[in-house]
Formats: sequence, C-alpha cells, structure tokens
Amino acid sequence: MKLDKEESTVKRIHKTDHRNFPMVPRVVYGRGSFSQLADIILPMRKNSEAPFIFLVDDFFEGKQLEEQIPWLFNDQIIFISADEEPKTEQVDAIVQKLKDDFEELPSGIVGIGGGTLLDLSKAVAIMMANKGLAHQYQGWDLVQRPALYHVGVPTISGTGAEVSRTTVLSGPEKKLGINSDFTTFDQVVLDPDLTNTVPKEQWFYTGMDCFIHCIESLNGTYLNAFSQSYGEKALALCKEVFLGDLAAQESQEKLMMASWHGGMSIAYSQVGVAHAMSYGLSYVLGVKHGIGNCLVFQHLEDFYSDGVALFQQMLEKQEIDLPKEICKELSGHDFETMASIALSMEPLWENAIGKDWKEKISTEQLISIYKKI
Amino acid sequence: MKLDKEESTVKRIHKTDHRNFPMVPRVVYGRGSFSQLADIILPMRKNSEAPFIFLVDDFFEGKQLEEQIPWLFNDQIIFISADEEPKTEQVDAIVQKLKDDFEELPSGIVGIGGGTLLDLSKAVAIMMANKGLAHQYQGWDLVQRPALYHVGVPTISGTGAEVSRTTVLSGPEKKLGINSDFTTFDQVVLDPDLTNTVPKEQWFYTGMDCFIHCIESLNGTYLNAFSQSYGEKALALCKEVFLGDLAAQESQEKLMMASWHGGMSIAYSQVGVAHAMSYGLSYVLGVKHGIGNCLVFQHLEDFYSDGVALFQQMLEKQEIDLPKEICKELSGHDFETMASIALSMEPLWENAIGKDWKEKISTEQLISIYKKI
Repeated sequence: MKLDKEESTVKRIHKTDHRNFPMVPRVVYGRGSFSQLADIILPMRKNSEAPFIFLVDDFFEGKQLEEQIPWLFNDQIIFISADEEPKTEQVDAIVQKLKDDFEELPSGIVGIGGGTLLDLSKAVAIMMANKGLAHQYQGWDLVQRPALYHVGVPTISGTGAEVSRTTVLSGPEKKLGINSDFTTFDQVVLDPDLTNTVPKEQWFYTGMDCFIHCIESLNGTYLNAFSQSYGEKALALCKEVFLGDLAAQESQEKLMMASWHGGMSIAYSQVGVAHAMSYGLSYVLGVKHGIGNCLVFQHLEDFYSDGVALFQQMLEKQEIDLPKEICKELSGHDFETMASIALSMEPLWENAIGKDWKEKISTEQLISIYKKI
Repeated sequence: MKLDKEESTVKRIHKTDHRNFPMVPRVVYGRGSFSQLADIILPMRKNSEAPFIFLVDDFFEGKQLEEQIPWLFNDQIIFISADEEPKTEQVDAIVQKLKDDFEELPSGIVGIGGGTLLDLSKAVAIMMANKGLAHQYQGWDLVQRPALYHVGVPTISGTGAEVSRTTVLSGPEKKLGINSDFTTFDQVVLDPDLTNTVPKEQWFYTGMDCFIHCIESLNGTYLNAFSQSYGEKALALCKEVFLGDLAAQESQEKLMMASWHGGMSIAYSQVGVAHAMSYGLSYVLGVKHGIGNCLVFQHLEDFYSDGVALFQQMLEKQEIDLPKEICKELSGHDFETMASIALSMEPLWENAIGKDWKEKISTEQLISIYKKI
C-alpha cells in the first residue's frame, strides 16, 4: 500500500507557487437575509462582556436598517462617514477606542456599508489582534496573527471588498492594502434589499469599480483560468446591469453577484492601470475610489480600447456626466506625487504591462493622462 | 450611538431562512499545484502519531501521481476502486480499519480522485468524528460534530464534489447524500495537470454530470441570483469545452472551473429530474452516476428541451455512443424500485416541477422513461 519512504521523499517533484487562496468560509445570500445576522453571530459571542462592534455607514443613522442591527448586552454601534477613503489613522483610532471602552477583546466586528466600511472593519479586526499601527501592515502578507471574527454586510455593490483578501487604506506614506490571508471576512451576508437606498451616481461609480477591475483582470498578464472564469461572469453581469433593461430588483441582485465574482477574479490576478492611477488621484485629491477609477479609465483607450468603448456606452445609457477639470489647479509637484504613488503599485503595472513595464511606462506619460482629468 | 435596547429587540424584523452556505475556505488553483500539498498539510499535522490518510483512486497505483503523494511518518495511502459508486458500508469499513490501525485520530483525510473518492473522503472525515454508521447520517443536517480536517484533490472534472456540502452514498435503503455544513472540504487543490490521464468516455460522462446539473439548476424553481450566476458560468464553460475547439490544456482548465462553478450553483438550488432518476438507475443496476445521468437525460425533452438538444449536439461532436437497452432484462419489480428511489428525492422534484410536483409526476411516467434506456 505504501511506497518506500526514502524513494517518496527523493522523488518529490519541483515546487510550484500558486497562492493558496482564502475564500469567505460562510456566505448567506437572499433578500431579507440580514434578519438572520442575530442567529449567525450568536454562537460567536464569547460571553456577555465580549461585545460585537458594528461599524456602520452613517448614511443609515436613523434609518430602518439601524433598527434591524441585532445588538445585545454591551455591543456597540459606531457610525462612520464614508465620505472619505478609509485611513490607517482612522483604523488606529477605532482600535484605541475599543481598547479603552472594553476590558475584554470584542467577540467580533461587523462591517455594514460599502467598500469604505468593509475595509475599515477588516482592518480593525486585524489590528485588534496585532501589535503596532495599521500602516505597518500595508503591503503583502505582513500580518502575523489571525484577526478577530469579522462579518461583512455590503450595502452597495461593486468594490468586491466583501470577498477580497485586502483592505485598502490611505496611510501616512501610501495608499495600499493590507493584503493577507487573515484579511478575508469569516462571514458575509449578501442581502440585495440593503442596496435599495443607494443614490444613483454612487451606484454607478461603485458598479464601475467592478467593471473596471474585470477589464483590468481579464486583460492582465497574471490571469489564469480560475480568475478568468470569475472575471468573465462578473463582466457579463455588469453588461446586463449597465447596458440592459433589467427590472430594479433583478438589477440589484445581478450587481451584487457581479461584485462578488469580480472580487474573486482578483484571486490569481490583479487590477491594472486604472486602479494604479486612481490611487494617485485619491491620495492627492481625496477623490473616492469609484469615481477616481472612472475619471482615469475614460482616458485609457491606449491600454484597454474595448473596455473604454463599453464604458462610454454605459455612461451614455445611464446618463452620467463625469466631473471635469478636477486636476486644473494642481501644481507640478502634485502631478509628480500622483504619478509616483501610481508607479509604486508595482504588481498592478506588472499585471497590466508585463515584467518589462518599467521600460514602457514613464512619469511623463502618466502626468499627461492626469492633466486630461 | 445606540438604539434603546427594548426597542431594538421589539422591532426586529421577520426572519427569513436563506441557507448560510459553507464555502471551501481554502483553494489553490494551478498547474503543478499538487506539489504544494506537503506544505499545505504540514501545519495540520497534530503530531507524528496522528497520520494523514490518503484515499486514492486505484487507477493511480504505480503511476507518477503515487510518487508525488507527500506522505510522512505513519501516514497511510489507501487505494480504492472507483468502479462502483461509493457505499455507506465502504465508509464504515474504512473508518473501522483506521480505528483499528491507529491509536490516535488521524490529523486529516486527503481524497485524490473523482467524485467517488472525494465523496468517500468527505464521509470518512465525518464518520471518524461522529458515532454510529454512515447510513444514519444520510439526509439533511444530521451530522452533529465537525469532521476531521479533509482535503479534496479532484483528478477528473464535472461532479462538483470538490465544492459541494454533500457526499452521495448508496446505503442499505437508499442512495442519498450526507448533506451538512461539516461535509464541505477544508481545503481543495485544483491542479489541471492531474486530469491529463482521464480516459475519453469517462471525461465525457463526468463532464456531462456538470452540464446536466447546470441545466437542472437553471431550470429549477429554487434558483436565485447567486446560484444562477454560478450555473450560467458553468454552462458557458461546458459549451466551450464540449462544442468548441479548444486546445487540450485550455479545455482541461475550463472543465475544472466548470465543475467548480457548477458545484457552487447548487448552493441555493438543486438538481432535478435527471439526477433523481439516475439515482434509481444506480441503485438497481449499479450504473455509475455520470453515465446514468446521460442515459436518463437523453429522454427528458419534455422537461428540458433546450438542454437535451444541446446534449445531442455534444454527443455528436464528441462521437460518443451511449449504451443501449440496459434496462431490457429488468423485472416489473425492478422498475418499481427505480421509480420509487427516484420519487423519494423530494427536494429534486420540488425544484424541477414546483411544490405541486406530486400531482404532475406518476410512477408510470417514470417507468415509461426507464423502459427507453
């Protein structure tokens, strides 16, 4: 029944290095599924002194969703504005507050909102269990200890933050994700009803985050069949949602799934030029991620010609006017900073252009694109 | 920051009941990724006395794959024939053997093979941690205790067993899955290289398992947007593989992903008429699941007309001749038994036909289909 042991060891074949990807281990999908959250987190309550912390987009303060949050004992609901991109210092402040407020570690963190709230929740769950400050973990696989149990409840679709192994934060020196196996949520609740209240422009810009990262992923050099299959499905759903004529409910449901599959498509891929340049724009101007992607992407016909053509159709069909001349007042130094932040995202450029990207992309080229925005 | 506690409790909204679906929490995809198995299971080794048990399709005995199995210490490799469908008594025998051979519980179970080996591995991992016999757990959510750590390594694509929360077994009274949250693998290794050696007919029949359950899932009454998105992608990939002209490697990769997405599409759906009737055929004649599905499905134009037409194209394109007249020698009692097994699969019929399925489906109707096979 067995091989000779020596032989087996000797013959062991060359190692490959494909990522052992962490998937969200539990997901509930369905209209009204948010009402199951109480039952879902109950077994995770360590004791009545170890609270659940709900980080919630302040858009929902005083709205019906607030009443549905299943808090008990000394749980805490913290409303947070999503007007700005999440910051490492914001994570550090929340962590400090929780350490001050409670003697025990919380039982878990629940993030309710869009990408900003989901990313903050992932980062807080990590930093409650790891020493130091959030910016020290920006990068790849720097987190040492498992995060607290954390749950993601998206209320807007497109970022893929509900399923990804990163949490993108603006730090003192860079805008960069905490990419780690511990970042991924332990539980996700996908309830399309929660997206009923999204304002139209935000719906469009966040949906375009998904569309654009599908285009980047599918046109990237990192792509394999796993990521391709998710990316193709997410792209097909985006086309149905933004170019088709779906009923409102079907559109919400399909965009929620597009976001999910779009996030999964990054497992063995990466985003590309639009995301890299959008990071620069966010860093200097504080432009939100979704709209920042759109502002950049419209000028990327040299990199993604078919994708940009589709994007123009979507803008037209959905009657969206992008802001213009937002870089008009910027100084030369500002443009240099934006280009430098964008160029620091090395894996994104390598995915987009190939290993020799540094020979093909220049600071001047990026600045000339930024100047069109 | 908080609602009044009483108010929050009182206002809690009506409960829904969407399944909180367990996803495989870790997956590695890529050619050659099987060589990473040693590193993946190393941290799961409890001590040198607690072995890993490798359940392997005996097709690989003496072949190259056997040499790549990363066994150490007192690990055991057990080769098992996949000529017959997995049985509850087979699970019980393996469990008894492992209890006799080792004082300690194994560190984990690794299944390497097609649906038969994957299902056996899931069942053995469950039964090593739960009292009694495997047939006592056939049904829905009867398993009480978490399974041993278990890893699935598919070497043929189509069943979706690598990602599903069931393990389908023939028992003393029925062919039925152990459906539970503990059934799902803790880790899956998707290495398309492992499917290089699959014989053509087996490749086709197992691939059709995926194609047919997509048709059943997408045409079912249980479908929601989550399952639909996975089912549509799996179906699209099946069309590429069986009706397109892909290169061998691309075809292997796409079929592996079709199986994965097809299995996921069952999360909030169910299979239907073909699977229900195929279970009856397997139970009485021991017909393997993949070919059994094909034998039934070809005659289901009243239920799945478009799907059956596509299936006929695939048979032709791939030059497959299905066996004929395999029910020729059966007695009236045999036909009754097959129909009765098929009709006992209530959720499958409810999914396929609707809540009033009992008024629409008769034993005679099923027997008349079986007689054509």
